[in-house]
Amino acid sequence: MVNVGIVGYGNLGKALEEVMINDKNVNLVKIFSRRDGLKSRHKTEFDLVENLGVYKGRIDTLYLCVGSYSDIEKIGIKALKNFNTVDSYDTHKKLKDYIHTLDKIAKTSQRVSLSAFGWDPGLMSYIRTVFDGVSLQKSNSFWGEGVSQGHSNAIRKIAGVKNAIQYTVPNEEIIKKCQNNFNFIPNDFEKHKRICFVAVDDDADKEKISRQIGNMPNYFAGYETEVNFVSEEEILKMQEVLSHKGYIVENFQILDKYQSKMEFSLDLQSNPHFTAQMMSLGGRIVEKLCEEKRFGAYSILDIPASYFLNKSRDEVMEKEL
Amino acid sequence: MVNVGIVGYGNLGKALEEVMINDKNVNLVKIFSRRDGLKSRHKTEFDLVENLGVYKGRIDTLYLCVGSYSDIEKIGIKALKNFNTVDSYDTHKKLKDYIHTLDKIAKTSQRVSLSAFGWDPGLMSYIRTVFDGVSLQKSNSFWGEGVSQGHSNAIRKIAGVKNAIQYTVPNEEIIKKCQNNFNFIPNDFEKHKRICFVAVDDDADKEKISRQIGNMPNYFAGYETEVNFVSEEEILKMQEVLSHKGYIVENFQILDKYQSKMEFSLDLQSNPHFTAQMMSLGGRIVEKLCEEKRFGAYSILDIPASYFLNKSRDEVMEKEL
Repeated sequence: MVNVGIVGYGNLGKALEEVMINDKNVNLVKIFSRRDGLKSRHKTEFDLVENLGVYKGRIDTLYLCVGSYSDIEKIGIKALKNFNTVDSYDTHKKLKDYIHTLDKIAKTSQRVSLSAFGWDPGLMSYIRTVFDGVSLQKSNSFWGEGVSQGHSNAIRKIAGVKNAIQYTVPNEEIIKKCQNNFNFIPNDFEKHKRICFVAVDDDADKEKISRQIGNMPNYFAGYETEVNFVSEEEILKMQEVLSHKGYIVENFQILDKYQSKMEFSLDLQSNPHFTAQMMSLGGRIVEKLCEEKRFGAYSILDIPASYFLNKSRDEVMEKEL
Repeated sequence: MVNVGIVGYGNLGKALEEVMINDKNVNLVKIFSRRDGLKSRHKTEFDLVENLGVYKGRIDTLYLCVGSYSDIEKIGIKALKNFNTVDSYDTHKKLKDYIHTLDKIAKTSQRVSLSAFGWDPGLMSYIRTVFDGVSLQKSNSFWGEGVSQGHSNAIRKIAGVKNAIQYTVPNEEIIKKCQNNFNFIPNDFEKHKRICFVAVDDDADKEKISRQIGNMPNYFAGYETEVNFVSEEEILKMQEVLSHKGYIVENFQILDKYQSKMEFSLDLQSNPHFTAQMMSLGGRIVEKLCEEKRFGAYSILDIPASYFLNKSRDEVMEKEL
């Protein structure tokens, strides 16, 4: 029986709670939040993040499900002194440095931390790495149709916006070109469309808000962006649907002659529940690494395929080779 | 510059020769065969398998491309005393024991051996393991349409048969059911059809040969099998086409509620060239494991995704996470 805790109680924390209380090898000790007075539908007890230290020795592995990435970094670094950690930290660019920071702490405190164990970064990164290694080329990843939390949050920060939701929609024509041509390299901006639904204050300047969205660097500038103004109720309804999709394609030639194609696709009814499922797998791998005393910080890319199964190496060879 | 050798000069050996002479980091020293008097289109020199020992110190890694699996075992065990080895040994059931035997030799001789580094076993095994680990279920693998060398050989052993080729054809209806139903478990026999083209002696009893094929245990018995009698010339023409396909699907529910689906597909114009590409990747991984002094015998499932790229761990994290 492994004693675990969850930090954060948004969509992901809630999904992970469900996964954990249905896993008979796991004892979910507490959910930690920065907010007081939260209630779980599943009778899990809450405590405040600031009290985490008290649980040293009572919790083995902590799952970090906080939404803000400055928080994930801060909490991750602090928690690793007392617990193993698993996260699906998704600021791709910062991951390398984050893992190096965690590695020092983990080695000192004899803990294991596993990062980027979601679906992207996560499963998609893993498949991408394998595809790129096999083909000696760069694969193309597509996301959606599905909600991007990061882009939705970015719109919500604009003055006059009450609520917003952003759908990332892959360009089917570009996908077809990638599937059918080994030498087609799409421009990043043409791979996806961004469709936004925005609820604004009554006196808001819709045209100005549209321009602000479209010009937002890193998030929308350069992309085909569609802005639709709707009511708050409509957005709340859209937010109930949490499906998402991912797709990777690599069309390449071996020796400039032999056509070869690898494809991977992921179709999820619930993005947070799939991420939770990945993280709980990450937790089992953390235990295995702890048993082997391989203390340190890892990303999903450091993990051999055989570790994904909760079986001995021999059993994995017998069943999967 | 790595010095390498190839053992065996069938379709796979020939494809690997092409891959190796086009790799500027590799010096292909010799091709080894049991037959004397072979000639390469690429001016590679030949020697006999029995002279392998002479090349100790002059060859780092040996690629085993012999067709018969008793030979791969014998040669692999012997070669590992003097060289690192890479193979795509494809007798799935024997792999575990083979790797354990190799492991002892590799540790004593301070060598690395990497097995099952083809497409199945190989890439497909790797993806399967990941899918099964994520879903906590068993995925379904399909092969074809493409030629099965093992099944073609089995037909050729029947008295009166001059030549034969067998196409493995996946059952599209069963694929659709696997894609659309999380709880559908197909019967192994209904997943594929086996279509055979056979050239026989003039006085052969075609009906008897058809029955012998259809009743052959492990290979055809239980499968929907179609036998077509054609001329030797037609078979030689069919043997020039070396394309193949692979497909893995896993439709599952998280917490008995949330529909999730993962799919992987592989579409190859040249089965031997893709296997050769995989094996040359295996060779690069063998070098890395040697540098790290991780002597021993491994299967593809023991390898972390990050090792698939010829880059430092940091670079892999930066580019792929």
